[in-house]
Amino acid sequence: MTAKVAILGASGYTGAELVRLIATHGQMEIAALTADRKAGSTMGEVFPHLRHLDLPRLARIEDVDFAGLDLVFCALPHATSQQVIAGLPRGVKVVDLSADFRLRDPADYERWYGKPHAAPELQKEAVYGLTEFYRESIRPARLVAGTGCNAAAGQYALRPLIAAGVIDVDDIILDLKCAVSGAGRSLKENLLHAELSEGYHAYSAGGTHRHLGEFDQEFSALAGREVRVRFTPHLMPANRGILATAYVTGAAQAVHDTLSQAYAGERFLEVLPIGELPSTRHVRGSNFCHIGVVGDRLPGRAMVVAALDNLTKGSSGQALQNANLMLDIPEHTGLMLAPCFP
Amino acid sequence: MTAKVAILGASGYTGAELVRLIATHGQMEIAALTADRKAGSTMGEVFPHLRHLDLPRLARIEDVDFAGLDLVFCALPHATSQQVIAGLPRGVKVVDLSADFRLRDPADYERWYGKPHAAPELQKEAVYGLTEFYRESIRPARLVAGTGCNAAAGQYALRPLIAAGVIDVDDIILDLKCAVSGAGRSLKENLLHAELSEGYHAYSAGGTHRHLGEFDQEFSALAGREVRVRFTPHLMPANRGILATAYVTGAAQAVHDTLSQAYAGERFLEVLPIGELPSTRHVRGSNFCHIGVVGDRLPGRAMVVAALDNLTKGSSGQALQNANLMLDIPEHTGLMLAPCFP
Amino acid sequence: MTAKVAILGASGYTGAELVRLIATHGQMEIAALTADRKAGSTMGEVFPHLRHLDLPRLARIEDVDFAGLDLVFCALPHATSQQVIAGLPRGVKVVDLSADFRLRDPADYERWYGKPHAAPELQKEAVYGLTEFYRESIRPARLVAGTGCNAAAGQYALRPLIAAGVIDVDDIILDLKCAVSGAGRSLKENLLHAELSEGYHAYSAGGTHRHLGEFDQEFSALAGREVRVRFTPHLMPANRGILATAYVTGAAQAVHDTLSQAYAGERFLEVLPIGELPSTRHVRGSNFCHIGVVGDRLPGRAMVVAALDNLTKGSSGQALQNANLMLDIPEHTGLMLAPCFP
Amino acid sequence: MTAKVAILGASGYTGAELVRLIATHGQMEIAALTADRKAGSTMGEVFPHLRHLDLPRLARIEDVDFAGLDLVFCALPHATSQQVIAGLPRGVKVVDLSADFRLRDPADYERWYGKPHAAPELQKEAVYGLTEFYRESIRPARLVAGTGCNAAAGQYALRPLIAAGVIDVDDIILDLKCAVSGAGRSLKENLLHAELSEGYHAYSAGGTHRHLGEFDQEFSALAGREVRVRFTPHLMPANRGILATAYVTGAAQAVHDTLSQAYAGERFLEVLPIGELPSTRHVRGSNFCHIGVVGDRLPGRAMVVAALDNLTKGSSGQALQNANLMLDIPEHTGLMLAPCFP
Repeated sequence: MTAKVAILGASGYTGAELVRLIATHGQMEIAALTADRKAGSTMGEVFPHLRHLDLPRLARIEDVDFAGLDLVFCALPHATSQQVIAGLPRGVKVVDLSADFRLRDPADYERWYGKPHAAPELQKEAVYGLTEFYRESIRPARLVAGTGCNAAAGQYALRPLIAAGVIDVDDIILDLKCAVSGAGRSLKENLLHAELSEGYHAYSAGGTHRHLGEFDQEFSALAGREVRVRFTPHLMPANRGILATAYVTGAAQAVHDTLSQAYAGERFLEVLPIGELPSTRHVRGSNFCHIGVVGDRLPGRAMVVAALDNLTKGSSGQALQNANLMLDIPEHTGLMLAPCFP
Repeated sequence: MTAKVAILGASGYTGAELVRLIATHGQMEIAALTADRKAGSTMGEVFPHLRHLDLPRLARIEDVDFAGLDLVFCALPHATSQQVIAGLPRGVKVVDLSADFRLRDPADYERWYGKPHAAPELQKEAVYGLTEFYRESIRPARLVAGTGCNAAAGQYALRPLIAAGVIDVDDIILDLKCAVSGAGRSLKENLLHAELSEGYHAYSAGGTHRHLGEFDQEFSALAGREVRVRFTPHLMPANRGILATAYVTGAAQAVHDTLSQAYAGERFLEVLPIGELPSTRHVRGSNFCHIGVVGDRLPGRAMVVAALDNLTKGSSGQALQNANLMLDIPEHTGLMLAPCFP
Repeated sequence: MTAKVAILGASGYTGAELVRLIATHGQMEIAALTADRKAGSTMGEVFPHLRHLDLPRLARIEDVDFAGLDLVFCALPHATSQQVIAGLPRGVKVVDLSADFRLRDPADYERWYGKPHAAPELQKEAVYGLTEFYRESIRPARLVAGTGCNAAAGQYALRPLIAAGVIDVDDIILDLKCAVSGAGRSLKENLLHAELSEGYHAYSAGGTHRHLGEFDQEFSALAGREVRVRFTPHLMPANRGILATAYVTGAAQAVHDTLSQAYAGERFLEVLPIGELPSTRHVRGSNFCHIGVVGDRLPGRAMVVAALDNLTKGSSGQALQNANLMLDIPEHTGLMLAPCFP
Repeated sequence: MTAKVAILGASGYTGAELVRLIATHGQMEIAALTADRKAGSTMGEVFPHLRHLDLPRLARIEDVDFAGLDLVFCALPHATSQQVIAGLPRGVKVVDLSADFRLRDPADYERWYGKPHAAPELQKEAVYGLTEFYRESIRPARLVAGTGCNAAAGQYALRPLIAAGVIDVDDIILDLKCAVSGAGRSLKENLLHAELSEGYHAYSAGGTHRHLGEFDQEFSALAGREVRVRFTPHLMPANRGILATAYVTGAAQAVHDTLSQAYAGERFLEVLPIGELPSTRHVRGSNFCHIGVVGDRLPGRAMVVAALDNLTKGSSGQALQNANLMLDIPEHTGLMLAPCFP
């Protein structure tokens, strides 16, 4: 059986990454691709690295025939996503890659995104898309909300530790190093090569980054009480990769044991031997997440470092993994590409 | 049917790239991996990006049981390669990625590589591995010699033009831009990040680069007389990619027509519409080669630009493509990975 | 004596580079800085690397008091430059960094820049700013037109050779490798880090790049007849640096001798020993141009490679060098900064 | 007056950086340069970016005539440095850039560097070289020990806060992002461009990095009791720059006030307005350190971020600043170069 899918917003990096992954999937057919401003173009014109693929021409959303589609990947900007998904036929499953359905409480959405949620009814049925932790809810879902890429990295480092109570939830610091493709293909001065290369800086510091909404929601639910982490992202001179360095209060061995057990059966989450540290370059272009644990010289303090590719495990790979579940396709299909190094 | 293969010299970049490609191949099993100095290590220790794969431990060559193997990829340094291949059982097929069997005339080998050829008898049966031009000889071959990565890029740009006589063979300039992984994983000062990044320079200029041996051999054979191109490589601050800019005397339209026709049936060689130019980033991590043709303002002068990934189409991808032919597996198997962009 | 200068268009890279250089000049005071859209900002807000300097706030051009100024650097976009300079008081000297006054014949300007020249009278008094070749005209000039950065690199490699007749002027190929800061701080998709890093490509190929207008003008004047070179720029994943690889027909020794003699007294133009090749990283951030010559294995063919920093020797350093001449300040003042490596 | 200096170990990056800075100093003459393995070479052969300078040829240390020298910069590897400095004539002042004299207690040296100190008597007279805090001791010193580059960055962020008691000294986390030139010009696999570019990772984690010896020594002395910070460096794909992100428990406004007052008279230490964050690219190639403070959403928690160039303010710039003090030359001489951006 081949599932028919559409990708809305195919002219951005997450759209292109979906196409790249689906190209070797084998059980999925791309029936429609949309990109409003570039409608009429071929995908090869917009992304020459995909020119060898036989793909439908980019169309406007209103020109897509959703009948017969099994699933829609929605890679549109937030706010737009809500409106478009609200207008889709009920029979089609949806994996949304935007921020629009990540926060269960519409009030949280309004607080972090600065405007009221436009589709609160849809929000109720949305399932949070961190696959390994919501697998059973994702399988039957109609609408799955992809997580933020930073939020994914941080949660892979910390969720089992909070759930197991092996760390102090009131003393968690997440120092993230993020690649530039996470900011998308938008024309901003600070994303220019001449501005970004050869340097690094913190941004959205002090508790203002929107992915904190996800951390607050998820970590508090796990702990059964309010959890507020300190989280600072730093922009790196590289295209792909998130390195999440989590400083925790807890015993390193217990931290390592807990993560190892939690992820023992997970194909994409690899816990390294204690004391070893991951690198973003070793997961580049893949759906893998490498996790390392090191104890500090200060007793009872440890560090967890998680590395993933923001475009793959952090967004489009996760989206495909969820789509596989929703379509009853083996979960890892199309996702076993080895990282591209060097 | 699954073919059993070994990779000799698996601790280098071409060895790792072979493993990366074979990981999604489906009809090939890696039965042995060797790396003399790192024997005893796992592949994941040497290349953490491959740690998710279930692979044999690195061994010394003398500890490999070649019985039962269908094919050996030899990714050893030149000179070493000759000796090792000469000692392999006759029944196993060999794809060599070194320079040792590229030049048909042992005198040419000695001239370009500075020492006598150690296995001239083996040289006689070696087939030059530029797949699209030697396919019928490669299929039944026992020993195939992978081409130089620069040599591949230059030949894709020029072979059909020389064969068809649409350019002046006495006036060909090849200005190459090459990524650093082509130099391998060796410890040289000029390959350090601090030395290489943020700048570029020409090297092996003036007709001294060893890949000229291949150009001379192949282009002269095509033209039926001696052809000597001018060829200068430049080292780029990037990890993957060769961009070959060929300046030729000939009509752009005839050049474009000739290349388009020659490569019409080729899955991996894509001739862009006339006037469009390729980029290495759009073939990164893939087996594709993109080729562009532009006419100069000076009548009768044109430019051909070919872009490929030196580790894939330029070496390990080519090696796998040839191995597929030799093992009677569909030629493109394991090679349809889309480029990894951005 | 301290000269008072203004920089118009100070929010671009060439404007910032002028400020960086003038900061250690010692005989020049920046009395005004303009940037229309960013008027009112401090320079430190627009370029935080200059925040330690005591500089005038960015103003609009119409708010600048040009009385009392000795010289104006005009780092505005072409076309705008013509209009602004036409409105400046006659008493102030001008160094223009745009393309507006580089081509002596207004018809050439219209051909290459697509619109009629708006100040043809001013053009008549403009001196072409390639310092080492127009020094005596620059000294007394009121208006000096800075050269294109690519045009500077190509001319340093070739002018003495054409003038001396040691190469065939009908067979010159200039293959340039250019850094991204040459494209300015403008918001274009292809200048994004995610689009540009890790790859390279040719652009404006086939004789369409505007700097050809300068090559045509200058080389033809030197040769006493029409000279048309073949010139292709390639965009590099780096911020600073032009490497001009010139393929010529001529004897390498004569080429080297000619360049060595021509530049013997020049402080900023260094001809390397024959056979050695320059690198852009070794001139980064400086006003030096390194030039190498290598003979080809084909007799009578040679290669000249020139490396300079597009923002310094290619534009703002050149501009300051010319300003020094015009203001009767020692020519090298403020320009002896050593390159910044690594 | 011109001071005569020698640079021992001039073939490394800190040696080259000293030469670059001294080139525009004006009151310092380089009388000798040494590099054991490269003795006999010119500096231009070892570092082509310095080829325009008139410098003494590289010599062996034993061939240097130290008579008549005012000061020696010792840029040798640690352990070697102790031996060489012990053999220098007493009359010559010494600025050491190695780790050999940073730790006042020889037992600390042995613990962090794994071997006994070879010159404990010399250690007694060594002054720790963090200029702004040891200025009065540096001025009359005979031997000044340059700080670690990471240690400098961390101390600029934290010293005034510890001294003033505005943060909890038992809860300090230093997450550093370090450029590759800090590792020197040594041939290590992980420093290759192909290994390092496009990714990032933590190293020497868990309290094992040697610069912790300096933090322990200095912070404990300031606090009047033992202080142990948590410190993790991360290797960045860039050549220059350290970004120190310090997570502290304390009020952001008090933190900002304390730093602002402490550094009010310091020419090279710039505290940004509260809420603004520095970037390494804006201090690249310069002696400046930019420091930002942001309060967290969690009350009583703040973040201090310091950015400096590891080769300049982190080592060679600091060394020159100290040498100026020791030689009674104005402290900032040769150090006012503006950062090189982009």
